[in-house]
Amino acid sequence: MTDSAAGKSTDTTLDRLIRILGAFDADRPTLTVSALSRRAAIPLPTAYRWVERLTGAGLLERAEGGAVGPGMRLWELASRSAPGTSLRKAAMPYMDDVQAVLRQHTQIAVLDASGVLVLERLSARGAVPNQATIAGRMPTFTTSLGLVLLAFSRRHVAESFMTEHASALGAPLREIWHQGGTARNVVNPTESELRSRLAEVRQQGYAAVDGQIDSEATGVAVPVLSPEGQAIAALGVVVPVSSEFRPGLAPMLLAAARGISRALGPGGTMPPSDAVFPEHAPVEIPDDRT
Amino acid sequence: MTDSAAGKSTDTTLDRLIRILGAFDADRPTLTVSALSRRAAIPLPTAYRWVERLTGAGLLERAEGGAVGPGMRLWELASRSAPGTSLRKAAMPYMDDVQAVLRQHTQIAVLDASGVLVLERLSARGAVPNQATIAGRMPTFTTSLGLVLLAFSRRHVAESFMTEHASALGAPLREIWHQGGTARNVVNPTESELRSRLAEVRQQGYAAVDGQIDSEATGVAVPVLSPEGQAIAALGVVVPVSSEFRPGLAPMLLAAARGISRALGPGGTMPPSDAVFPEHAPVEIPDDRT
Repeated sequence: MTDSAAGKSTDTTLDRLIRILGAFDADRPTLTVSALSRRAAIPLPTAYRWVERLTGAGLLERAEGGAVGPGMRLWELASRSAPGTSLRKAAMPYMDDVQAVLRQHTQIAVLDASGVLVLERLSARGAVPNQATIAGRMPTFTTSLGLVLLAFSRRHVAESFMTEHASALGAPLREIWHQGGTARNVVNPTESELRSRLAEVRQQGYAAVDGQIDSEATGVAVPVLSPEGQAIAALGVVVPVSSEFRPGLAPMLLAAARGISRALGPGGTMPPSDAVFPEHAPVEIPDDRT
Repeated sequence: MTDSAAGKSTDTTLDRLIRILGAFDADRPTLTVSALSRRAAIPLPTAYRWVERLTGAGLLERAEGGAVGPGMRLWELASRSAPGTSLRKAAMPYMDDVQAVLRQHTQIAVLDASGVLVLERLSARGAVPNQATIAGRMPTFTTSLGLVLLAFSRRHVAESFMTEHASALGAPLREIWHQGGTARNVVNPTESELRSRLAEVRQQGYAAVDGQIDSEATGVAVPVLSPEGQAIAALGVVVPVSSEFRPGLAPMLLAAARGISRALGPGGTMPPSDAVFPEHAPVEIPDDRT
């Protein structure tokens, strides 16, 4: 199975396809062909040909002013059987229970090599600000979702993640994920601060972060555990700092997370989050739980 | 911009990619490579090469037993900027209001050339059976969502849709969308029955369907209207036939749908549903609203 010339050209096609799809995001749901050409690093005439083919196939759709954006067909293909589907389906009724009581934001997220990926979010009208969007990214080291996902991952996953993202530790938060700009002064914890936070989160079984991303909001998150006790996902809420429910949030979320684990069953199709780093073998880590 | 040989081979690549992604669905979230090869009509050795490349790119992911399924990266790329994103974002707080009161199922759907596509669904634990799934398809002629989308589309869209799907009218419902099997005896309306139902839906401003798909459930749906008065989407609920809220459902949904229209704004990025049939010019249709 060596790479033939045809194989090479197919790889290039896929690479380009991924760069084209990756050029769009929540801030740029549509792009002109020339902007797309620039962001995907594809020559303009080639970009025009690609747009022609991809719109013909329904993977892109034309918008106003000659712009294009990802197509509904792409969303349908990706969504009806995505790996998060069984988790979202299992989680939704429990998230609805939580949301019915709190009427703020209830969200579920997973960890991959790039950080926290939000799979689903329920939000009430008039709720406090919340930066999470579905299929959006959140900071890993400064959010309750991220802390809980790291704390309850297999140890070698957390270690690999910290190694990969070592340059971010102790540094100001990169703002690419952030549209508003209220997170300007957020600084990631240093490695030793992070390690002691994670130990604390492991011990108490949940993470709570006050006013870190938005000064009026508190985030609380708990792990959805696999039968082996690792985090499959994190279930979290964002409520006003002054919420009367604050003391009850962790117990409420822990109960809901147990329901989600049970609904997923022993053969839940969501891969344990260490599947994200298959190349890293488990390594001996000193236990910081003392 | 004629099709060169290279252009042709790229088209084939795309066609195959679409057939591969299209081979998975809610019933078959993962497939062995040989099953994938059969369903996508791609020779087995080629399928193996494709799976290798697509898993390398994160568009597919490996599951247990040598099976593969769509990858989280595909979902992320497709979801963070899909055409339905602005609609779902605008709709979610209003759907949450409805769901907080009813605690059953609240869903939003759009119409495309294949029928009703569910964009989002909120469900309570213990709610009545409901066949809708996110990114799933629903029957068009027998559901409140489908009737409302047809009734409030531009006239030529509804006419085109009925022409395209003429063979389904008056015939038993095809069951491909249905996993449970409780819809065995459902028969689509004939063309004249459908026309009179649509006229009725237009006049009353909403659609209500009792126990058609599941005998214990009632579906009620209303249109989310564009500034021009066409359906951008349908907002619907599924509740028990005996629900005490039944008489208030339509007014409640109509108020929520107005909120969603307002939240989308005049420049809402969701295309009006007639963008689905761009090739069909508006035609003169006798007015059945009398």
